[in-house]
Amino acid sequence: MSKDRLIYLPLGGAGEVGMNAYVFGYGPKGRERLILVDLGLSFPDMSSSPGVDLILPDISWLEERRDRLEAIIITHAHEDHVGALGQLWQKLQAPVYARDFTARIARLKMQDAGLDPEKVITVGKAPERVELGPFTVQFFPVAHSLPEASGLIIDTPAGRLVHSGDFKADPTPGVGEPHDPDMLAEIGRSSVKALLCDSTNVMNRHAGRSESTLGEPIGKLMREARGMVVATTFASNIARVKTIAEAAHEAGRSVCLLGRAMLRMTQVATEAGILTDFPPTISPEAAKDMPRENLALIVTGSQGERRAASAQLARGSYMGLSMKEGDTFLFSSMTIPGNEREVGRVVNALSELGVDVLDNADRLYHVSGHANRPDLEAMHDLINPQILIPMHGEHRMLREHAKLAIARGMQSMVVPNGSMLDLTGDSPALVDEVPTGRIYLDGSRMIGAMDGIVRDRIRMAIGGHVFVTLILDENDDTLGDPWAEILGLAPTGKGGRALNEAIEEELAQYLERAGHKTLANDDKLNEGMRRVVRQVVMEEIGKKPEVTIVISRLVE
Amino acid sequence: MSKDRLIYLPLGGAGEVGMNAYVFGYGPKGRERLILVDLGLSFPDMSSSPGVDLILPDISWLEERRDRLEAIIITHAHEDHVGALGQLWQKLQAPVYARDFTARIARLKMQDAGLDPEKVITVGKAPERVELGPFTVQFFPVAHSLPEASGLIIDTPAGRLVHSGDFKADPTPGVGEPHDPDMLAEIGRSSVKALLCDSTNVMNRHAGRSESTLGEPIGKLMREARGMVVATTFASNIARVKTIAEAAHEAGRSVCLLGRAMLRMTQVATEAGILTDFPPTISPEAAKDMPRENLALIVTGSQGERRAASAQLARGSYMGLSMKEGDTFLFSSMTIPGNEREVGRVVNALSELGVDVLDNADRLYHVSGHANRPDLEAMHDLINPQILIPMHGEHRMLREHAKLAIARGMQSMVVPNGSMLDLTGDSPALVDEVPTGRIYLDGSRMIGAMDGIVRDRIRMAIGGHVFVTLILDENDDTLGDPWAEILGLAPTGKGGRALNEAIEEELAQYLERAGHKTLANDDKLNEGMRRVVRQVVMEEIGKKPEVTIVISRLVE
Repeated sequence: MSKDRLIYLPLGGAGEVGMNAYVFGYGPKGRERLILVDLGLSFPDMSSSPGVDLILPDISWLEERRDRLEAIIITHAHEDHVGALGQLWQKLQAPVYARDFTARIARLKMQDAGLDPEKVITVGKAPERVELGPFTVQFFPVAHSLPEASGLIIDTPAGRLVHSGDFKADPTPGVGEPHDPDMLAEIGRSSVKALLCDSTNVMNRHAGRSESTLGEPIGKLMREARGMVVATTFASNIARVKTIAEAAHEAGRSVCLLGRAMLRMTQVATEAGILTDFPPTISPEAAKDMPRENLALIVTGSQGERRAASAQLARGSYMGLSMKEGDTFLFSSMTIPGNEREVGRVVNALSELGVDVLDNADRLYHVSGHANRPDLEAMHDLINPQILIPMHGEHRMLREHAKLAIARGMQSMVVPNGSMLDLTGDSPALVDEVPTGRIYLDGSRMIGAMDGIVRDRIRMAIGGHVFVTLILDENDDTLGDPWAEILGLAPTGKGGRALNEAIEEELAQYLERAGHKTLANDDKLNEGMRRVVRQVVMEEIGKKPEVTIVISRLVE
Repeated sequence: MSKDRLIYLPLGGAGEVGMNAYVFGYGPKGRERLILVDLGLSFPDMSSSPGVDLILPDISWLEERRDRLEAIIITHAHEDHVGALGQLWQKLQAPVYARDFTARIARLKMQDAGLDPEKVITVGKAPERVELGPFTVQFFPVAHSLPEASGLIIDTPAGRLVHSGDFKADPTPGVGEPHDPDMLAEIGRSSVKALLCDSTNVMNRHAGRSESTLGEPIGKLMREARGMVVATTFASNIARVKTIAEAAHEAGRSVCLLGRAMLRMTQVATEAGILTDFPPTISPEAAKDMPRENLALIVTGSQGERRAASAQLARGSYMGLSMKEGDTFLFSSMTIPGNEREVGRVVNALSELGVDVLDNADRLYHVSGHANRPDLEAMHDLINPQILIPMHGEHRMLREHAKLAIARGMQSMVVPNGSMLDLTGDSPALVDEVPTGRIYLDGSRMIGAMDGIVRDRIRMAIGGHVFVTLILDENDDTLGDPWAEILGLAPTGKGGRALNEAIEEELAQYLERAGHKTLANDDKLNEGMRRVVRQVVMEEIGKKPEVTIVISRLVE
């Protein structure tokens, strides 16, 4: 047994906020039994992944070793923790363990992907234990921005690991279990080898605030607003949805929930018995007949997503409901970095309708689901680990968290995606690098982020596209002139000359000059024509386009 | 004279932070003499304007009336106020008036565009007056984030207008003139008809802070940092460059300025006599030989721009200098909304090098150049206008500013780009709508934002591009099979079939089925083939591509 080792290998989440996927292993080197904690996704953006539907972690390392995989554990139901299950489960085919609410969401993901929802097994909270090969896992409740979020106690023959999950130090989170320092201290009383810890908010030096601080300002807003109030938040933030609904109800407003995710999440929470005492809601049809001042909508689209309810309301109407002068729109949310322009478009469109838009600028209407630096320090103290491994964050956050831990007397290091850490002995050591990366779900296909497909799209977006058709006969003589089409480029160049005609003229001249050897050689001809196209386009309109040359050789 | 009118018409800047261009007119309706205040640009982004170089206001309304244009007035040297001068002056051909520093920058813009820099006329500050047809204009100094920023007193036969320019209420701005409440109160003692007022920071309820608060924390950083310190800010923020350089110098560090804009701006400021007592600087070559702990670099690239010094340092090196473990990088700046991802990339790349990155999260290292709400209220009180016209802001900011003004007893309204306001009488009234919009500088050509060119590029970025070549003979019979090429799409579909082959097969079948009437008709054939391509691509890979069909008809 002395040659067994305990390893930690993040395949996603350690270098980004998104697509969490953390592998733990125990056993002889190269034959460790494995568990995977979380299988999440990231969202694409126009600047680096235009047209992509979802971003998934590259789990091929794990796929190749799936005979050694005991289980997939899901800590909570956010997309960056469970969102890739439907797309990637088939590659792993291991049982999935989660607490009730999370398991229900996970089963929906499996169903949506045509997979067997029975692969998802519901687990009770600690002290309930799940035996997974050499691992014994307990789910302990943490406070977060959705119900039944969990941390994990992972007991191994080489010692105890604690995985914080996503957490905040909120004693009154509204829905879901409160932050429980006593329970955490109890865990910390055992000897904890390593704490894997959420790093999202390590840069924030202020103590976090509780969900319970939001009821009063949102209530005031609901009472004082003249017209209709529309509020948006993440649909999974069941506590927030309830906070808003209660504030509306107490202010004499009827509550209407809008947006597919909003309805799905509240339904699952109700089925799971989590969403008790929720105020009565009305249908969009009933809402249409309601005086505006007696109405509150809670809608999807806090990130400005084009197709969500908020953006549709900003563009005109959603489900027959529309906003106007005197109404109020509340972003009870934070804008994820990178979504500022999309959110701004919604806000300005609402402003043009005469709607008063409120956001969290004065920190009245939203609290984060992640622990800030002082709360992380308190967590360190409660769990009291030998080693602090920062996870769930961009590189700068992991680095800051590791520095913080070292300053506070723990061992710590940044372990980015693809780095394998050996945790067996007293000093953790990086022992391997495995290939990781991003996989794009693009339409119905998975493509590698480095395959060049999206790179070609970005190049067309920046430079436009010129494609040229040339027909040659069996003697390698041109049949007619080359034909150029352009897409995404100015139609005319200097002096008003049509760009495609300019290209065609220069190509015709080039072909006249080209020798028979060139005309007979596809590669040479392609290269020569491409160069001519690039020169003309740069000369005429100053752009460097993508160029495609199609050479057709007619053979009798 | 009673039929003369005073009009205000924003062509840019009233609906965005960027591309400021405000027209004022006085005279008989349709024959007003005109002045233009500012001629700025906006910066493109990948999500709405990929590949575009600059965004300019559509000034065709003014171009058509340039015989009536007395002058172009530039309030200060920021790109969103002077940046379009080189591109658009030719369309207007009016003299350009600005204060010394601004005029120097404006002349460089003219020179860069091959225009006559002598068209730019230097004006002293108030009480110096410029007579421009019916207008008398004075430039009064305001504090902002670059030197010699100005507001304008615009006297007309219909009364006095005050244009705030971009300003902050900073009594100690470091470089440039301080905020001067006495001078503003003096202006306000005359009867001011309307105040056109900066709205950028109207959402911020806290009083603004002074540039002078930054010296101490930046000094502390320079003293305590172990290795090299690299700081970035906008090059035009001469006061900040000086604050940083002085802090470095006092901490015993040699200062090296890096980046083209940084060198250009400090040179112009020195030539204009504004940048006095600047610490000695060293060359990049000398910096290379300097112990790191004795060195501070001040560099361009605060917005994460790919080609700027900061991003190059993050990727490896710039001018032979590079960063490593123990060094510190300071963002003495704010991230413009929409640039978060680019800045994040630079920060994380620096973090991977082991560099400590500091930003303005704790509000220690940057102050805004714009007045916050309490400062705007103080400005209203000092100038005491009948009418408050919000400008320089997104729609929500203009709306918030108008609401604020009305609540404080002034007349106010949102006047978005293209709306003409008649200010002649006691109650301002919207009297016309003129076409405005955005013009893209794309390579060397100007194209309309609504021309569809960039839309096509966005569509290719999202959906990829399929282009098909078909050759027909003089009898409308196909010569060989259709040929499909794809760019930016997964190469294989369901079951591993090559996508272009799948397209070609389906097209061949379609062409077999197609009657002679279809084959003889380019439009019908094009439409039919396009439909087939879309179906196959959706079926095989779930995408909706851009499709181009090239039909070549060989004629003997």
